Amino acid sequence: MDISLDDGAKSELVRVRRFHKKARYDTETLHAVLDAGCTCHIAYVLDGLPVVTPTLYWREGDFVYWHGSAASRTQEKSAGTKVCFSVTHFDGFILARCAFDHSVHYRSAILFGVAEPVDPREKEARMLYMMETYFPGRWSTLRPLQENELKATTVLRLRIDEASVKISGNEPRELSDGSQPCWAGVLPVKMIVGEPRPSTSLPKSINVPGHVSNFDILRPQNHST
Amino acid sequence: MDISLDDGAKSELVRVRRFHKKARYDTETLHAVLDAGCTCHIAYVLDGLPVVTPTLYWREGDFVYWHGSAASRTQEKSAGTKVCFSVTHFDGFILARCAFDHSVHYRSAILFGVAEPVDPREKEARMLYMMETYFPGRWSTLRPLQENELKATTVLRLRIDEASVKISGNEPRELSDGSQPCWAGVLPVKMIVGEPRPSTSLPKSINVPGHVSNFDILRPQNHST
Repeated sequence: MDISLDDGAKSELVRVRRFHKKARYDTETLHAVLDAGCTCHIAYVLDGLPVVTPTLYWREGDFVYWHGSAASRTQEKSAGTKVCFSVTHFDGFILARCAFDHSVHYRSAILFGVAEPVDPREKEARMLYMMETYFPGRWSTLRPLQENELKATTVLRLRIDEASVKISGNEPRELSDGSQPCWAGVLPVKMIVGEPRPSTSLPKSINVPGHVSNFDILRPQNHST
Repeated sequence: MDISLDDGAKSELVRVRRFHKKARYDTETLHAVLDAGCTCHIAYVLDGLPVVTPTLYWREGDFVYWHGSAASRTQEKSAGTKVCFSVTHFDGFILARCAFDHSVHYRSAILFGVAEPVDPREKEARMLYMMETYFPGRWSTLRPLQENELKATTVLRLRIDEASVKISGNEPRELSDGSQPCWAGVLPVKMIVGEPRPSTSLPKSINVPGHVSNFDILRPQNHST
């Protein structure tokens, strides 16, 4: 493999080895992949064993954040330790004329670093930012956060520093003979939102707000406001 | 928390602590969650640090399998070591009348165990099974697998043993006063496949086969054949 030393990778840990031409290390691409997602997978080491947990996340500037119950094992055990943070968008199947050339379309971001607990005095501001990133305008319509709710919540963050992005959007590779008589192409995959389902107790006078009806799951993290 | 000792959890490691009433440990539920997915996240420990990698997987009986390049760091370093294998289906947002009661609908399976390399003599049979699980009938239409392609591929597997499933499909919790005048309900999220895009070199005489047009991303793992 031809991996140059000036490819932009911050460290050997994040340097993409396989199909390194798919690798990107620039901030704009990284932010675009992060801002296109809701769920991440966070790995940490617990008593020498790997543990990975899915959760929601959001980005604020140079950090990704996630939150959880103060009583959760992941929140407790991963705080202050090295984590690996992964966001993956699965965009489709590539069906080729031989099994070996089958592949997938995807966008993947991997971040490494220490998960930092957010100062308790900052938690409410972070929760507000999370809500407004997903559903702009919603926070002010909610019953205000209570002290015991804030206490029951921990917020962790990770500086976006040691990171890599891998993007595959290629068409199927062509066989040199091209003669295999089977279908080849791309089967795209994407996420969509369905119709909002009101709570059974919702008064009929309350309509679906714009932050729900306009929600875009392909770009849930709204950084325009 | 009231966690009984006879809840079915195989070990303390997989016992669900938070919202343990959402926990399931039975094989039928576990298989249903695994068979509804394509992509997993596999965590392992590399030089003391957590690393998580997204990849495709499939299930054969009591094992989950994944494959990759024999030259990949994940395939090489995770073989023979303890891994944590995670499949997550994000099914929607729960929007409540206070920030604290917001949540998500999801189905999540977590497996722990040692990643076993599959015997090289078994690799072709496993690749066939993978293809037929995703796209029944496709394998026999492809140019046969070549020896060098098999050599360049490693297949790993994990016995489905130490595992837990967590499923959340609840409606938003109701405030005791119920008077906060904001919209509350569920915003469902799901994956769909788009229109198949033929390769530019595909002869016009080759139509989209049933294994592509009938592909169901909500149940990609076809265990009926």
